[in-house]
This record gives sequence, structure tokens and C-alpha cells, in this order.
Amino acid sequence: MGLNDFILGLNNLETITRAPGFFKFTEHTVAAHSYRVTSIAQVLGDIEEHHGVEIDWKSLYEKALNHDYTERFIGDIKTPVKYANKELRGMLQTVEEKMTDEFISQEIPEEFQDIYRRRLFEGKDDTVEGEILSIADKVDLLYESFEEIVKNNPEIVYKEMFLEAVQTIQEYKHRPSVTYFFEEIFPELLDKSFYGKEEFILQINQYL
Amino acid sequence: MGLNDFILGLNNLETITRAPGFFKFTEHTVAAHSYRVTSIAQVLGDIEEHHGVEIDWKSLYEKALNHDYTERFIGDIKTPVKYANKELRGMLQTVEEKMTDEFISQEIPEEFQDIYRRRLFEGKDDTVEGEILSIADKVDLLYESFEEIVKNNPEIVYKEMFLEAVQTIQEYKHRPSVTYFFEEIFPELLDKSFYGKEEFILQINQYL
Amino acid sequence: MGLNDFILGLNNLETITRAPGFFKFTEHTVAAHSYRVTSIAQVLGDIEEHHGVEIDWKSLYEKALNHDYTERFIGDIKTPVKYANKELRGMLQTVEEKMTDEFISQEIPEEFQDIYRRRLFEGKDDTVEGEILSIADKVDLLYESFEEIVKNNPEIVYKEMFLEAVQTIQEYKHRPSVTYFFEEIFPELLDKSFYGKEEFILQINQYL
Amino acid sequence: MGLNDFILGLNNLETITRAPGFFKFTEHTVAAHSYRVTSIAQVLGDIEEHHGVEIDWKSLYEKALNHDYTERFIGDIKTPVKYANKELRGMLQTVEEKMTDEFISQEIPEEFQDIYRRRLFEGKDDTVEGEILSIADKVDLLYESFEEIVKNNPEIVYKEMFLEAVQTIQEYKHRPSVTYFFEEIFPELLDKSFYGKEEFILQINQYL
Amino acid sequence: MGLNDFILGLNNLETITRAPGFFKFTEHTVAAHSYRVTSIAQVLGDIEEHHGVEIDWKSLYEKALNHDYTERFIGDIKTPVKYANKELRGMLQTVEEKMTDEFISQEIPEEFQDIYRRRLFEGKDDTVEGEILSIADKVDLLYESFEEIVKNNPEIVYKEMFLEAVQTIQEYKHRPSVTYFFEEIFPELLDKSFYGKEEFILQINQYL
Amino acid sequence: MGLNDFILGLNNLETITRAPGFFKFTEHTVAAHSYRVTSIAQVLGDIEEHHGVEIDWKSLYEKALNHDYTERFIGDIKTPVKYANKELRGMLQTVEEKMTDEFISQEIPEEFQDIYRRRLFEGKDDTVEGEILSIADKVDLLYESFEEIVKNNPEIVYKEMFLEAVQTIQEYKHRPSVTYFFEEIFPELLDKSFYGKEEFILQINQYL
Repeated sequence: MGLNDFILGLNNLETITRAPGFFKFTEHTVAAHSYRVTSIAQVLGDIEEHHGVEIDWKSLYEKALNHDYTERFIGDIKTPVKYANKELRGMLQTVEEKMTDEFISQEIPEEFQDIYRRRLFEGKDDTVEGEILSIADKVDLLYESFEEIVKNNPEIVYKEMFLEAVQTIQEYKHRPSVTYFFEEIFPELLDKSFYGKEEFILQINQYL
Repeated sequence: MGLNDFILGLNNLETITRAPGFFKFTEHTVAAHSYRVTSIAQVLGDIEEHHGVEIDWKSLYEKALNHDYTERFIGDIKTPVKYANKELRGMLQTVEEKMTDEFISQEIPEEFQDIYRRRLFEGKDDTVEGEILSIADKVDLLYESFEEIVKNNPEIVYKEMFLEAVQTIQEYKHRPSVTYFFEEIFPELLDKSFYGKEEFILQINQYL
Repeated sequence: MGLNDFILGLNNLETITRAPGFFKFTEHTVAAHSYRVTSIAQVLGDIEEHHGVEIDWKSLYEKALNHDYTERFIGDIKTPVKYANKELRGMLQTVEEKMTDEFISQEIPEEFQDIYRRRLFEGKDDTVEGEILSIADKVDLLYESFEEIVKNNPEIVYKEMFLEAVQTIQEYKHRPSVTYFFEEIFPELLDKSFYGKEEFILQINQYL
Repeated sequence: MGLNDFILGLNNLETITRAPGFFKFTEHTVAAHSYRVTSIAQVLGDIEEHHGVEIDWKSLYEKALNHDYTERFIGDIKTPVKYANKELRGMLQTVEEKMTDEFISQEIPEEFQDIYRRRLFEGKDDTVEGEILSIADKVDLLYESFEEIVKNNPEIVYKEMFLEAVQTIQEYKHRPSVTYFFEEIFPELLDKSFYGKEEFILQINQYL
Repeated sequence: MGLNDFILGLNNLETITRAPGFFKFTEHTVAAHSYRVTSIAQVLGDIEEHHGVEIDWKSLYEKALNHDYTERFIGDIKTPVKYANKELRGMLQTVEEKMTDEFISQEIPEEFQDIYRRRLFEGKDDTVEGEILSIADKVDLLYESFEEIVKNNPEIVYKEMFLEAVQTIQEYKHRPSVTYFFEEIFPELLDKSFYGKEEFILQINQYL
Repeated sequence: MGLNDFILGLNNLETITRAPGFFKFTEHTVAAHSYRVTSIAQVLGDIEEHHGVEIDWKSLYEKALNHDYTERFIGDIKTPVKYANKELRGMLQTVEEKMTDEFISQEIPEEFQDIYRRRLFEGKDDTVEGEILSIADKVDLLYESFEEIVKNNPEIVYKEMFLEAVQTIQEYKHRPSVTYFFEEIFPELLDKSFYGKEEFILQINQYL
């Protein structure tokens, strides 16, 4: 009932795999994913700031760092899966939130509970920082799925993930960091030779 | 929409870990667990039959073999966790069942759908075979957690799992296979030297 | 000398890899393979029954579930290897059988020894259930080797394994489940894009 | 020469193990370690703030998140090793810094180079945030080595690491977060039974 | 039919585990074991030479380096297992030798076949170098099993392996390197605290 | 301060990965690499001898076996990396050598220190045996990188490694074993179908 259990939870996230059973070439843990998303959010924040947008850095780092902590409770099961509709995903969300509530009451000292209530609940709101988190989360998924594609993993699901990520990032095209991403970073990522590349580029271009 | 997707699902279960983040020394996949539970159910079925109980072997094998297939949809998240109460576990159960329904409609040819509706829903009913499945599932958990205990994993959770398994198996002590298990098999399992053994034996004995 | 050692053997099979050193992308344990073969045998049994064939389900499940248990003694070394001829494979078979005999005498209680003598010796006889086991074992090998092929593993051995599996399954083409497999399930499996596909399909067609 | 290579480096850190060859039970990647240290720094920052200390959160998160990024260049080799004296460790530091310089010139767009020069160089200065980073880095090492100790790993090195971590954290005992750590969090961590505990507690107490 | 296949075989030995399913904490590959045995043989050779024994270094290195290459054919299955008697192990030996013969005829250019016939057949003869190989092989097993013991692995098999190794090494106590080993190296290895140590030392002392 | 620590170091090399973070499909340990290089040096030595060159086998085996032992001190970080120039690599070399000195003084009995000073310092001198070691080290790198290429790993770095290996081996084309390698062994290795092969062969041919 000090903060020891919160810290041990970090260790747990080192052993929980992201989208278990999906990534065939490289497995990703929730801990490593959180590190990557926070670092990508930092990259995007720099770009925004360079384009004159004011960034609340404390909020941005906090949102990104903690956005998947609660997966220690039920793992990474909200990732789009074939047989789950919106209603079912909503139910899983509710379960996760109730367990988070329970965890905060049981393990976090009272003087810090409000902070954790803010931190451990969905950070993807419509603030600038919330939007950057949404983008960063998808940029990471895009890099993860691209690694499978480029290694010739034939499962169609990686191309679907990749294209869905492109599409979601595009929904934020009013953000300067999104423009910069597609103009400066994305082309460098794609600059590799792989089997089926031409056809895939055509598919991507439909979303750009 | 033939049975190809069902077979690929078997492969998926080879990559989904049981109680992810829990077993520290030996990880177990859902596929291997299913194999073990079916084999243990077979051992228990033999013992029952030897004591004059009639066994419907087709039903016993079918229940045991398929009892965790649906974990391919949301993974192994119903395992007792610290912050989930009964209501939340019920919700997870509902989600899993709805995804199973969806899977059967989409992937199983119509002429076999009824068989899969029987197979992929909870087999732990109050028939002799349903009871043996419940026992076998806990015997496997008992062996899994014992391996951690004996290797001196200090997390209290393994002793809790072990004792909870002993207790649940004891609820079926009207079954001859349970009597046999505690008299002939269990003592041989415990016949090893490990740190903290004496105290642990005392705890076990409270449930026997 | 109760059945504890038999159960511990199941755990052993979780750590013994199938065709060690062969599968480069996904390793398979003997435990997981046994689960998959039993589940595939179940699929084939359904199809046979749907076509009016009478299935002894107890025998089918038993044969499939236990068919590789004895690999705990000398591992998976009978898999066709480059430098072993038929005589050498026969010798390895004999060694395995003698160790199985020894195991049954030492570890299985007398009242169950006959059952284990039936279970732990080769189940691939010429009954319907023995034939289904032979088919299921090869269907699993076919899925395993296909996964390597589709991921562009250039070792010729996977294509050889795949084609050998197709060929062996074809030897049972008098079974309705084989006809169904090649008409309904197989085409869906192959429906993926991979490097060298066209040429490979031509090779497959020679055996169909 | 956009920021693509920086992002790919994050992925690299997922595959670089921390103190390679040291942790025998649980391996840690540099990516996961960075996530943990940042989260622990956040916990310590909360405590400081609760005790009236002003925290520059942007600086704290930035220092913690990026403090080991440069290990992608030469791995984690500055960890105290048996045969390296202070001079040798200084030389390794110099090599790492020169490679970092080279990396920034080659891969980071000019408009962001100053930011990366700040981020990728040692953040453990004598600001409040620099001190919190030093503490958080050692708290993480303390949790990592404790896991080995508690699992009965007999290598003396883990106890040495643990005690060295305790000692270094104690050098910051003027920080309220250190007082809080030893009073509220540490006792809960130690509250487990393990072989050789009594003697070890005596050793720890010499440093408290 | 050049030497390419011999070299690829080295790669195979990187993926074949030693005593598969036995070592629970650290797995060992046949490749790594061969490296270790050769290095240990080198240590023992130095000691012998220091005591005035003449060493044919070419023969010593060759024997040690190649002594397990043929395990690429049937894996590591001659390791003492519970249910195999001497006759069965002899049969396995024969199988391995016949496959080796076949391999040499098929893959090694004629001008080198005699060399490989010498290299790939049992090097543990009664020359000084053959004896050193026998000792080195057991010293490595002793270190491997000690690692499991010291980590509190309760399986009795490791203590049995360790004691059997001590005993076999003692059979060569006419060799100065064996005297040196037990006087100078062994005590340093044992100088660690572990659960059950006192009792184990008593057991060891019976063989010294 | 006997030789126990040298032997434990062998075990360390089983856990240190070669070029950490580089090989994506198959990881290689320094122990396994040492085994492979020694075996390849043996193959090359045979060929040289067959062409009338006198080989000092003791020296050849010794050089090859021990050439990477010192990586236990700072890992495998001298492998060409993107941001390290010659000066930086020289500094790393110096650090490694000073740690080796320290190790020999602390851990090797005085009567053997001269031997270890010879063994643990760079063996790639301009003797026949030193040249064969240089070739063997690159042949192994060539096989390692080829495995990644053939599995369609798109990272350009493997092709660069492969071509750099070809080029370095060619620098020793006055050695009969190099001629033999490119005439008899290399073509057999390349005799596989993989994506992008034609273009790659053209690149290779520029160096032959």
C-alpha cells in the first residue's frame, strides 16, 4: 500500500507481449512499446513546437508514458481482432477501467490517488497533447507492422494494420507533425526493397 | 470459410502464453496446457473406470481437448487476478462467448456448426466428464505452480494458486480419481526437498 | 511408481522441440504438436462421420493424443533425416520401444499397465482411426512446413517436407476426409501471396 | 537524414540487453529499462512535489526517457565490471560521446540538433531533476538485482549491486523522495521470505 | 559435395540443445559445449605440460573440437537417461556411426575423407589426449550441473550428474591435471552459499 | 585465483550475443562463433596442407579458439558500426587490452600467465596461421550474413557485411585455401533461390 506495487507493475509490463500471437518476427512488450511511444511523442512535440504550436510537455510525457500501464490488468486485448465488434471492445474497456479503480484504491497512498486517476485513464483526449499521443501510438504500430511486411510475412493482417495506421494518422493532418511525418520521415522508412513493394505502395497512396 | 481457419487457430494457441507475466521459470502455452489437461483427464478417466464408474470417453476427450480453444480470441485473462471481482470476470466471459459465436458463423461450414457450438462452450458441467475436466484443469495448475514453488520463486501467488487448486480438487472428493490422486500421485510429487517445505506442507494439510 | 512420473513426462514434452534444428521461424514442441494432431484428427473424424463412416471416437482421440508421448525418451529423431536409411530408422524405433517397455514396468501401476502398452505403442494401424491419425500427423507437418515456405525460408527441405506430406495424405485418398481436405481446406491455406508461389503450385499439382 | 533513423534506434534498444550475461533469471532490454526509470522518476517527482519541492517536469521526463539512448552505439558496457578501472570507463564514455556527436550530425535535421545535443548527453547533473534521475536509475537496478537475489541466484554480484544501489541512493538522503523511499516503499519490497534473508538484511542495515 | 555442408552443420549445432529438456535454468547448445570442452582441454593440457607430460596439441585440439559434431545427425541422446540400458545406448551409437559414414561418403571430397574418418569417430581413446578429452567433457558437465544445483533446482538428476562427473574424473586421478583440478579449481567453484550445501558437500567427499 | 574464473568466463560467452541487435533471424553467441571459426580454420588448414603448405596446428587451433575470449569483458562492440571511426575503434581495443591485462594478473596462476598473454592477445598476425584465422573469421561472418539475406531480411547491412567479408577474404587470395573456398565451397553455398538474387550476384562478382 506504498508505491511498491506500482513499481512491480512496471516489471510485469516487461513480460506482457503486445498483440500476443500476432507479431511473428519481433515480439514487443508493453514496456518497450510505452518507451517507444513516449519517444515518438517527443519527436512529434519538437516538430509541433518548431511550427509554433505551444506544447504542455509535462502533460505530453505523462500521457504517453502511462497510456498502456493498465494493460498489466488484462493484457493487450483491445487491439483490433477479427471477431470483436465495437460493443465487445467497449465491454473490455469497462472491465479494464473498473480494475484500475480497484488498483488505485488498494495500492496507491491517498495523497497520490488523484494523480493516478488522471494518469491511468485514457489520455487520448482532444487537447494537442492527446492528439499527439494518438498519432504517436499509431506511428509505433506502423513501424512494428512494417517490420513484418518488409520481412515478407505473408499474413494480410500486417498490411491491414499498416494501412489502418496510415489512415488514422491522416485524420490528424491538421497537425504540422503529421505533415512533417509524411513528408520527411515516412519516405525514408519506405526506402527499402521488399517482395510485393510496388503493389503495396499503390495501396498506401490511396490514403495519402 | 472451410475449416482452415480453425486449424490455423491451433497454431495461434502455440504462441499464446498461459497467465502471461505470471510463470517466471517455465512459460506455458495454451496449446501445451490443452495437451496436458487432456492427458491428465485420460489418467483420471482410467482411475474412475477402474473403480467401476462408466466413462463416456468421446465426451471426456472432447471436453478436455477443446476447453481453452476460445482463448485465441482474448487470451488467458480469466485466470484469477488481483483486481478482478466476480462481476468483471463474468463480463469477460460474455465477451469471449460472443466472439466465439461470431467465429462459428463466419468460419465453420454450416453442417458442422452445431458440433462446434457444443465443443467451444464451457465443458465444465455436472456430468462425470465435466467434473473430471474441472479436476484435470486444476491438477495441471497444481503441477505448474509447484514447479515455481520448488524452484524457490518467492512470489506468494504460486502458493496461493497451489492451495486454491488443492481446495478446488477437494470439492470433488466424492470422485474416486480424487481420492486416488491424493493418496497415490500427490505424495510422490511432493517428495522433493525445497526451501520452506515444512511450513508449506502444514498449509497444504489444512485442506486435505 | 504412481502415475506422477507419467504426468511429469507431459511437462517434459513441453520442452522437447520437434525436428530440432529444422524449423527456423517457428519452433514447435512435441506437446503442442500432439495437441494440434489430436484437434486435426477430430476435424477429420467429423468429416468422415458426416460422410457416413462410423468412428470409434475413444480410439481416435487416444491414438492421436498419445502418439508421440514416447519421444520424451529419445526426442524427435525419427523425422526423415538426410543420412538415415530405413534400417537405421528401424533401429531407433526398437530403442524407443524398449525404453517404453522399461518405463511402463517401472512407473505405471500394474492395474493400468495393459492400457499404457496399448497407448504408447504405434497407433498408426490400418483401422479407420489409425488411418486418420496418419493423415492428421501429415496435415500438421504440412501446416508447419508451409509456414516456413510462406516466410521465404529458402531451405529446400521445407518444400520437400510439404510435398512428401501431400503425397502421403494422397495415399489415403479413399478416405472422404482426404477428398474434403484437398477440396475445401487446402485451397484456402494456399490462398496467400509468397515468393516463388507459381513454381511451387506446379510442383504440388503433380501430386494431386 | 530525417528523424527515421532516431525512431529505428528505439527499436534497436528493444533488442539490446542490459548488462549482457549478468541477469540470469530475467533479462532486461535497454528500452524496457528506460521505460521503468522514467516511470520511477515520475513516482519520485510526485513525492518531491508533495514535500514542497518545485519540479521542472519537462526536464525530468526528458532526462529520464533519453538517458540510455546512446547505448544503441556501444551497448551497455559501462555497468561496473570486475576488470575495468575508472580510467577505462572514462575512455568508453568518450567513445560513446564521439559516436553520439557523429550520429547527431549525420541523422538529425539541423533545426533539431541542439535539442538532441542536450538530450543525448549525460542528464545526471546536480539539478533536482538530475538528482532524481540518478536515484531512479539506482532504484531500478535495486529492483532488478533483488529479483535475482530473491530467486536464490547465488552469484555474489547481485548482492553487491543491490548494496551499491542502496548506498548510492543514500548519498541523496537530503532528497525527501529518498526518505520516503526507504520508509514506505523499500520495506514492502523486502517483505518476502527467501534463503539467506536474515544475513542479507544485516548487510543492508549497515548502509541505512 | 565440397565442404559447404560440413560448415552448415556447424550452424546446425548452434540450434541443437544439449540434453534437451534437462537443463532448466540455462540451456546449452552442442556448439557452445564443444567450445567449452576444447577450452577446458586446453587448460588441462597446460597443467599436464607444466608437470612434464608431453602433449600432442594437434591431436588434443582436434579430438576436443570435433567430439560431438556427429550429434547433428541424431542430437544429444546418448546422455544417461533413466530408461536406457547399456545395450540400447550401444544401438544408438551404431546408428550414429553409420550416419557419419554415410555423411562422409556423400559430402566430404575424397582427398579429405580419411581425415574426417579420424575426426568424426570417438576420440576418447587411451592416449594422453584421449584421456584429457574424457576429463574435459566431464568437467564441463560438472560446471553445467553445478549451475542448476546452486540455483536450487530440486531435481535430483543434477546432483546425480555432478557426482557421476566427479567419480568419472577421479578414474583419471593418475593424471596431474586431475590432481590440480581437485586441489586448485574445484574448491573455488564450490565456494558459494546455496540451499542444502552442507549435505551435498558430504556426498561429494565420498568420491574424493 | 586458480583457473576457475577462466572456465566460468567460457560460460559467460554462451550468453553474450554477437553483434547484439544485428542478426534478426538467428542470434549467435560468442561461444558458438568461436567454435565455428575454429572448425572453419581447421577446414582451411586441411586445404593448405593438401597444397603443400606446412601448418603449425597447435598455433592455428590456439589462435582460433581464443580469438574472441576477451569479448567477455566488453562484449562484441568492435564489429563495424555506423558511427565509429578508426580512432574510436582503436580506443575500444585499448580498453579491452587493459582489462585483459588486469584479468590475467588477478585470475591466472603465475606459472601460466605467459601462455595467457600470448593466447588472449590478437592472433591475427602475418604468420600462415594468423592469416588463416583472419580468413576463417570472415568466412563465418559471410555464412552468418548470408542466412539473413537468404531469408529476405531487407536491411542493407547484411549485404554490406557479406560483400565486405568477400572483399577481405580476397585480400588473402595468395593462400590456396582462399582459391579453393571460392571455387569449391562458395558456389554451393549460393546455390539457393532467394528474392533479389540476380542483382546480388552481380554485386558479388565485382569482388571476385
